[in-house]
Amino acid sequence: MSDKMSGKKYVYLFEEGNAGMRDLLGGKGAGLAEMTNLGLPVPPGFTITTEACNYYSANDKKFPPGLEEQIRDALSALEKKVGKKFGDLHNPLLVSVRSGAKVSMPGMMDTVLNLGLNDRTVQGLAAATSDERFALDCYRRFIQMFSDIVLGIEINRFEEVLEREKQRHNFQYDYQLGAGLLKGIIDEYKQIVKTMTGEEFPQEPMTQLMLAVKAVFESWNNPRAIVYRKINQIPDDLGTAVNVQTMVFGNMGENSGTGVAFTRDPATGENVLYGEYLMNAQGEDVVAGIRTPYPIARLKDEMPETYRQFEEISRLLEKHYRDMQDLEFTIERGKLYMLQTRSAKRTAAAAVKAAVDMVKEGLITREEAVERVDPTQLDQLLHRRLDPKAKLNVIAKGLPASPGAASGAAVFDADEAEKKGQSGEKVILIRTETTPDDIHGVVAAQGVLTSRGGMTSHAAVVARGMGKPCVCGCEALRIDYEARKMTVGDIEVKEGDLISIDGSTGQVILGAVPLIEPELGEELRTLLEWADEIRVLGVRANADTPLDARRARQFGAEGVGLCRTEHMFMAQDRLPIVQTMILAETDQERDAALEKLLPMQQGDFYEILKEMDGLTVTIRLLDPPLHEFLPNTEELSVEITRLKLTGGDPDEIAQKEALLRKARALHEFNPMLGHRGCRLGVTTPAIYAMQVRAIVQAVVQLLKEGYHPKPEIMIPLTMSYDEMKLMRELTEEVIGAVEQESGVKLDIPIGTMIELPRACLVSDQIGKVADFYSFGTNDLTQTTFGFSRDDAEGKFIPQYLEKKILADNPFAVLDRDGVGKLVKMGVELGRSVNPRLKIGICGEHGGEPSSIEFCHMIGLDYVSCSPYRVPVARLAAAQAAIRHKK
Amino acid sequence: MSDKMSGKKYVYLFEEGNAGMRDLLGGKGAGLAEMTNLGLPVPPGFTITTEACNYYSANDKKFPPGLEEQIRDALSALEKKVGKKFGDLHNPLLVSVRSGAKVSMPGMMDTVLNLGLNDRTVQGLAAATSDERFALDCYRRFIQMFSDIVLGIEINRFEEVLEREKQRHNFQYDYQLGAGLLKGIIDEYKQIVKTMTGEEFPQEPMTQLMLAVKAVFESWNNPRAIVYRKINQIPDDLGTAVNVQTMVFGNMGENSGTGVAFTRDPATGENVLYGEYLMNAQGEDVVAGIRTPYPIARLKDEMPETYRQFEEISRLLEKHYRDMQDLEFTIERGKLYMLQTRSAKRTAAAAVKAAVDMVKEGLITREEAVERVDPTQLDQLLHRRLDPKAKLNVIAKGLPASPGAASGAAVFDADEAEKKGQSGEKVILIRTETTPDDIHGVVAAQGVLTSRGGMTSHAAVVARGMGKPCVCGCEALRIDYEARKMTVGDIEVKEGDLISIDGSTGQVILGAVPLIEPELGEELRTLLEWADEIRVLGVRANADTPLDARRARQFGAEGVGLCRTEHMFMAQDRLPIVQTMILAETDQERDAALEKLLPMQQGDFYEILKEMDGLTVTIRLLDPPLHEFLPNTEELSVEITRLKLTGGDPDEIAQKEALLRKARALHEFNPMLGHRGCRLGVTTPAIYAMQVRAIVQAVVQLLKEGYHPKPEIMIPLTMSYDEMKLMRELTEEVIGAVEQESGVKLDIPIGTMIELPRACLVSDQIGKVADFYSFGTNDLTQTTFGFSRDDAEGKFIPQYLEKKILADNPFAVLDRDGVGKLVKMGVELGRSVNPRLKIGICGEHGGEPSSIEFCHMIGLDYVSCSPYRVPVARLAAAQAAIRHKK
Repeated sequence: MSDKMSGKKYVYLFEEGNAGMRDLLGGKGAGLAEMTNLGLPVPPGFTITTEACNYYSANDKKFPPGLEEQIRDALSALEKKVGKKFGDLHNPLLVSVRSGAKVSMPGMMDTVLNLGLNDRTVQGLAAATSDERFALDCYRRFIQMFSDIVLGIEINRFEEVLEREKQRHNFQYDYQLGAGLLKGIIDEYKQIVKTMTGEEFPQEPMTQLMLAVKAVFESWNNPRAIVYRKINQIPDDLGTAVNVQTMVFGNMGENSGTGVAFTRDPATGENVLYGEYLMNAQGEDVVAGIRTPYPIARLKDEMPETYRQFEEISRLLEKHYRDMQDLEFTIERGKLYMLQTRSAKRTAAAAVKAAVDMVKEGLITREEAVERVDPTQLDQLLHRRLDPKAKLNVIAKGLPASPGAASGAAVFDADEAEKKGQSGEKVILIRTETTPDDIHGVVAAQGVLTSRGGMTSHAAVVARGMGKPCVCGCEALRIDYEARKMTVGDIEVKEGDLISIDGSTGQVILGAVPLIEPELGEELRTLLEWADEIRVLGVRANADTPLDARRARQFGAEGVGLCRTEHMFMAQDRLPIVQTMILAETDQERDAALEKLLPMQQGDFYEILKEMDGLTVTIRLLDPPLHEFLPNTEELSVEITRLKLTGGDPDEIAQKEALLRKARALHEFNPMLGHRGCRLGVTTPAIYAMQVRAIVQAVVQLLKEGYHPKPEIMIPLTMSYDEMKLMRELTEEVIGAVEQESGVKLDIPIGTMIELPRACLVSDQIGKVADFYSFGTNDLTQTTFGFSRDDAEGKFIPQYLEKKILADNPFAVLDRDGVGKLVKMGVELGRSVNPRLKIGICGEHGGEPSSIEFCHMIGLDYVSCSPYRVPVARLAAAQAAIRHKK
Repeated sequence: MSDKMSGKKYVYLFEEGNAGMRDLLGGKGAGLAEMTNLGLPVPPGFTITTEACNYYSANDKKFPPGLEEQIRDALSALEKKVGKKFGDLHNPLLVSVRSGAKVSMPGMMDTVLNLGLNDRTVQGLAAATSDERFALDCYRRFIQMFSDIVLGIEINRFEEVLEREKQRHNFQYDYQLGAGLLKGIIDEYKQIVKTMTGEEFPQEPMTQLMLAVKAVFESWNNPRAIVYRKINQIPDDLGTAVNVQTMVFGNMGENSGTGVAFTRDPATGENVLYGEYLMNAQGEDVVAGIRTPYPIARLKDEMPETYRQFEEISRLLEKHYRDMQDLEFTIERGKLYMLQTRSAKRTAAAAVKAAVDMVKEGLITREEAVERVDPTQLDQLLHRRLDPKAKLNVIAKGLPASPGAASGAAVFDADEAEKKGQSGEKVILIRTETTPDDIHGVVAAQGVLTSRGGMTSHAAVVARGMGKPCVCGCEALRIDYEARKMTVGDIEVKEGDLISIDGSTGQVILGAVPLIEPELGEELRTLLEWADEIRVLGVRANADTPLDARRARQFGAEGVGLCRTEHMFMAQDRLPIVQTMILAETDQERDAALEKLLPMQQGDFYEILKEMDGLTVTIRLLDPPLHEFLPNTEELSVEITRLKLTGGDPDEIAQKEALLRKARALHEFNPMLGHRGCRLGVTTPAIYAMQVRAIVQAVVQLLKEGYHPKPEIMIPLTMSYDEMKLMRELTEEVIGAVEQESGVKLDIPIGTMIELPRACLVSDQIGKVADFYSFGTNDLTQTTFGFSRDDAEGKFIPQYLEKKILADNPFAVLDRDGVGKLVKMGVELGRSVNPRLKIGICGEHGGEPSSIEFCHMIGLDYVSCSPYRVPVARLAAAQAAIRHKK
């Protein structure tokens, strides 16, 4: 290459690169280089680096010095290799220009084919191929594509001309247009360019090339690409490479063609070549969908030798890359050319099957198999899904904003959703977009559908936060709130009509669709067993009911890391007793109510400990503020006013007024930071004492029946040594009493949730009186950020994501810089005084891969997450162990 | 001393101790030792150490081994020195036994005098003094005192006998009882002891002594002492010493006497001997108040030589201790004996005057003077006070729970307090005790008065938190809620009657009393100037109005560290405009409202910057969530229901319903953690832009008028670099625009409040885009502890203090372990990336001495506190500088 410019090397011939150079050459460029060096039939070419693109972006749209020179040198090398010359009248070199970033990215510039053609070289191409029509057709396509992509002229203007001519001659296909007609069309095309740009269509090939390169660079910052990067969290400074490659033609007659294929089935993972092809066509014909391509298997009959060669290359590439590949090829007059190889996108099911199969085939190790599957993607397999056997009447498609499927009656406002939802009806909330006013509706609905807004819209963020299916930005919907209906084309959906949504695909389906509960398939089970061998972190589940516990166990949870007891208080048969306890005016009254709750709670604990027999169950004592169990003061006030003005029963009024007074007295300005958690245990020890007794009595009962209950008692929300010590003493006292009464000696660890910044900061004190810690990162995130989750996720987090102040919703992905720093401090300080401290995490982060990796890095003992996330956590924990092996 | 027991030394003769041994010998013991070694006339004696007491407490009420032996040895030494023998029939040694902890502590055991007397030694005393009546009177007193204090027999039983005899003989004074009558009384006394205890009055002097020592040790853990220590934050493990001293008698006739004196006036600090004495009396006669003592000056005429000697000793002791002393003395037959010297308790005014005078007298240095005054006590001088010229009709006295004085109409329930308070009437809320239900009443009242509850009761904690005067536990009050009145004796106070309270003294006064605003006196001004020379920390004030700013300046503030702008939004003429802005449906509507607010805000800033001309004013942009400016949803709902049921105007209903919808949409579950602070700036930049413009335009206006405005713009509640950067850019943009418009070049620092744990944790990022930090430790305490102040101070902090889970209310005293650790981290990380970062604190902790000391220790640049606390802060900052000089 040239050494005239002593500067940076911006251009690499394919043979100069390799698969390891994706940062510099982009995915496509690196793949072409690797195939070239493997000796595969790749049309020669070169790649302009991502650094050149970044230079261009950073320097006011100027090419880096020496770039054009280096391109000219690379072209000379190409010319030598193929024996053609760029711009040559007799045997012109034609090239394709394609963008190629490190990661595949829709929204970037499309391909320009046949670059190098002009009024003169088209003659040369005609002569060289002895096919004037072919040459003219290539030129026609080139002008159209170049004008669209590089010059920014609407493609319809050209299509109209083409259509008009076809209609005039009653042709069905482009190839029916002869040379004469094509010449006329080309003239008209050039006229359009002149009219639209004020200049002639560029005739000079080098000018064409440099304009195309410029267009690729600029497409890096087009709005679609920027949005895509934001949603997919791709850094803005990666830049794109440009691949310039000698043209080969799939449209040179019936022994030419073009196609795409996967080395295995990307939907199922089955080990068969999977793809399609079209004879006598260029790439854009496949995309245009005018002719239906054939399945790849058919090529075997049509061109057995080519098929055999392709199959061999496909095997070779899979073996070489040790991964499923996504291939593009062209056949020019019977000769096969490879145009692309890259790691294949695949469904979660396919990823799992391919990985497990490849281990069995000896292609990869178990560890590699575990690394191959994206845990986030695994989530697809762990939500309720549409029954694949069901016939779907898909009426529209929006953004897949929150995974899982749901069916229910359509409702168009939140109040209605809440009303119906509370009466037990399943509903789908449909809005143009949601606002904080609609939260209660989202809570009550099975899923959410919106016609506006993207992946970070209010609806999307809120639904993901709640783990509900959501399809958003479904622009085909026309919602009419007044008439309480929506229309999609001429289909009408009225309030109450059944619809279904699939938040994993974005589909909107008319009618109810049977849903299936997720299950671990054979291969996934195998893969997760391998993950279990590798991972260091334990995986438990958050489960409040025996049903949850059973599911968690099925999904491989090694225990219950968080069993909340407040839901047990909310049960319909208990709430009145709980309220009596709260409203008690005397200790006697209160104790009587607690006495009634004791056997009920004991039953709860009995069931869940039995379900998890032999595995640890961490039971958290009552956490929420007591007023959560009382009616809302506003509703009560309105009701009292109504009763008074309508001559209601004075006794009833008096009773409600008493209730209101108590509710007011317990009302809190910031319940999240209020009289809750172990503060209840400090101020009303009788409640905790009842709960501990219920747990311990359940344990004694189970032991006597021959079970192996392993409870841990967890104190919520501690903030200091003295507080934890007091709670520990209270707990030990009750355990001791039951031991005495029953004559059974027990060993029940007592620990605490660490969910306040102060607890982390003084963990070297608290650690002395705790047997275990469980980081409650939901609340810890709330206090560390000063974000009330109930308020923030609806009100401002979407805007914070939009404005890139937050890279992630910190309630979804653990914030390592802030919250993580506190957690790390808590772990280190705690272990410094109590090396045997067992430490886990039980916030929702316990099921999120990046957060799990962090937990591994700071040496936690386990993560605990919702039952459905247990497989995700097992896999993510294994990947973290691999990644941080050193 | 004995070396028979090789153990610890538990007993020190006075000559073996000195003033530096307060920890071991207690305050009284150390003083007696020091005076002994100075050669002053101190009756010989010895001290049993606090270690002996601690041993006793820790070892199940057992004396440490060897203690009795050491006491016997010390007694022998005494006997030799005074030529008398303990228990001797002819010339018996009598001793006094007194407790004496390191700090003076009411609630501890009182003095036992004349110990060593019994049926036989009383004869010896009679012989030795040639005064049988005297000897019998001593014995009578001893039995009475010993029985009361050591044996725990109610003193009334003895007093009754005495009274009966006096009445029978028509005597007015005890000394009229002759020897014969006394003998009968003594017999009766001994009979009482036998009846009550089942045993004879102990005759053996050594038994008497050991019982008395035991009683002193046990008094350390009596309930009164425990409560006193809790309130005054005295550690429980100090223990008390016991002083055993040869008796001298002030009751040996007309040339004997006893008295107490201060070396200066403890109320004013004036440099004159101040005290009183009683001739022919023992200590308890003074206390009993039967005879009125004479002022000390009279002794000069009565016993000129003794007075001269006492005056000389008093000067000597003050010089020796270099501090005001509180002295006790006894004159026995003309000879002066010193029984105590200790640092004198004094009022704040006296402390200041004495300290300043002593510097002028050359007795102490300025630095020492600054150390002498307790900044907390200074607070007395800085609240509204009762006009000292006013005649007070004091009807009762309670605990001085929160300093300052207040006058207003008596009200007996919180709702009434709120109603009257909102209509502008000044009220005093009177309750038996307050509960969280009463908070709104406390907010509305000038002060709070309760008949029950101590210094850590709900009322006390809440009132202190709000800086309102409070008198609590005033048990003389009889409150009748039904009749809406209270009675004190036969005085009746009805609702609406005017009363006054003084929270600094506990006085309850009938009628309104003129109050005077605090002012710095001459001496305090001098002392604070010396403090200013010493302190390193700057002191600013939190001030939102020109009036506040002026007061702050008068009190020596060097700037405004926190100027809040939300109060400006609440002003009656603005609230409707603010509401229009919030309710705006379009940007135009909102901008129109903001445009109206702009000149008003500009006026606010103009005034305050002018008032603080030349000094820094840190202006915080809008902080509270917007719904704080809208009506309460509950009230609105009730109102709508009422209107609907009573056929209200449909337009009005519709309008209120619209308001309710908006208020609901803005409603937050946890406003403290909600959509507030710079989150408003991020989501509605127009509000901040208006505020910045108002500030900058005010600055330009002032500059043009020749003033020197020094504003700083402060962004509230930031949590990350990107957020702060965005806010900084927004601010700089507006500054730039006004610069352009006005042609004036400005230099306005832009900084942030650090009030979230995350901000501290990522301060090494935020510090890059901030010119200054101000730690908002109120909010930081809320998030670090997970305590909502509004909820916690009323609901559970009192119990947490009671149960000693919290040593202090963390909103009053900065929590060094938790919050302090975060602040320190924030400072260190911030300065690591921006060494010129100016850092202060503007939470209420900025006016609290221990917190100020911490700010000094971690190297803050300044503290900012309420104007009234500025003098406290100046003094505390100087003391911190002295304490941490090394």
